[in-house]
Amino acid sequence: MSMTLDSPDRGMSAQPDPKPAHRVVGIIGGMGPEATVDLMRRIIAKTPARDDEDHIHLIVESNPKIPSRIAHLIERSGPDPTPELIRMAGNLQRAGAQALAIPCNTAHAYADSIRRAVTIPLLDMVSLTVEQIAAGGFLRVGLLASTAVHNTALYATALSARGTATVLPAEQGEVMALIKAVKRGDTGVQAQAALGRISIDMAARADVLLIGCSELSVIAAGITVPFVDSLDVLAQAVVNFASKNEGTM
Amino acid sequence: MSMTLDSPDRGMSAQPDPKPAHRVVGIIGGMGPEATVDLMRRIIAKTPARDDEDHIHLIVESNPKIPSRIAHLIERSGPDPTPELIRMAGNLQRAGAQALAIPCNTAHAYADSIRRAVTIPLLDMVSLTVEQIAAGGFLRVGLLASTAVHNTALYATALSARGTATVLPAEQGEVMALIKAVKRGDTGVQAQAALGRISIDMAARADVLLIGCSELSVIAAGITVPFVDSLDVLAQAVVNFASKNEGTM
Repeated sequence: MSMTLDSPDRGMSAQPDPKPAHRVVGIIGGMGPEATVDLMRRIIAKTPARDDEDHIHLIVESNPKIPSRIAHLIERSGPDPTPELIRMAGNLQRAGAQALAIPCNTAHAYADSIRRAVTIPLLDMVSLTVEQIAAGGFLRVGLLASTAVHNTALYATALSARGTATVLPAEQGEVMALIKAVKRGDTGVQAQAALGRISIDMAARADVLLIGCSELSVIAAGITVPFVDSLDVLAQAVVNFASKNEGTM
Repeated sequence: MSMTLDSPDRGMSAQPDPKPAHRVVGIIGGMGPEATVDLMRRIIAKTPARDDEDHIHLIVESNPKIPSRIAHLIERSGPDPTPELIRMAGNLQRAGAQALAIPCNTAHAYADSIRRAVTIPLLDMVSLTVEQIAAGGFLRVGLLASTAVHNTALYATALSARGTATVLPAEQGEVMALIKAVKRGDTGVQAQAALGRISIDMAARADVLLIGCSELSVIAAGITVPFVDSLDVLAQAVVNFASKNEGTM
């Protein structure tokens, strides 16, 4: 029972207090929907719980209709997703969220616009993941991510500032094909094995792999080499924030 | 692409329209959180999709802090969850939901209060499931549900009105132990096998089983006899409503 975290000086009552002891986290989701569900699943798994009330209060807008970040950033063909991302951030704050999380690395290209739209913190998956990589002292990180993440240098810039080099896959086209397969709903053992093969090739040239695309996190079960999963880092940050354990903030 | 569903007479545009073609569904979730994630997973699986934008726009408040329905309805010891259920329903409507779904059968004991609190429809899991059972022409239904669902006769009354008899488990205590195990996070093969054993015993006395507790839906993989899963019925109703295919409404 963590019900006393909020008001440690509150008197004991025979009637449990329904007031949330955890802080509420809002999730800007749907990019894609599988990754959003996977984040929620990881949050549940990381929360010590004996009954429903020990779990974390989330408000999730899973909106797969957001204009494609990949189309906007790489193909320069689609509409700008920023207005819809800003609308969702404000919507989640109005609905009660006390912090925001985005289970999509590519969408972090728009993180500054989202931060400016709200007065609650963004649990920044990219920054938190880079911190974890830096803490491990790795010099060469193999980055499994969408081409949009590579093109915007979302991870490469932050890693380089910590003295860490970014290693790319031999065939980025294969990685993009897997990301698109997961977005179609193909999350089976074949997709997992394909990601496992790509990972073994990269591991020969890197000290650790970084899963920097939440679609790839969904099929990470096939990876047999050491890796840091950005979706897992975000799930832990959500649990820490909600539980008011601000060690990683 | 289902983007033309909303405005079949709209002119074609080279730039994809970011406006949702699907209607938005709000989920009053967290009872428990595993069942909410399971409903979302089923909605994704039932939606024909080639890319993110083909999926359904959901707004989910997963609030595991809602006062226990079981404590309120059976043990008569806890606070009334109605005010918090009503708050969540209004919150989801304000956030943009055009219909509501509740992935918790027991919470349907409060369905009338929730309906009165909003001006959008409730996709009623209990009514929709009873309709599906009735369409199958079954005379004896084995009900796997919480003791609160049995005590409030949520299913038994509706089934009886259709001429269908409700068959109970030999040991309801075993069923409640499994529900509580899932709420603790125990969804593994042992829990699945235990539900499978209970189901075989009930199947000897019933024409079909009804999974009338969303925690049991999470571990239904171990059931080897014919059953109707209320969480699956609700997932299909969400997809139908969102896609404006109102066949089951």
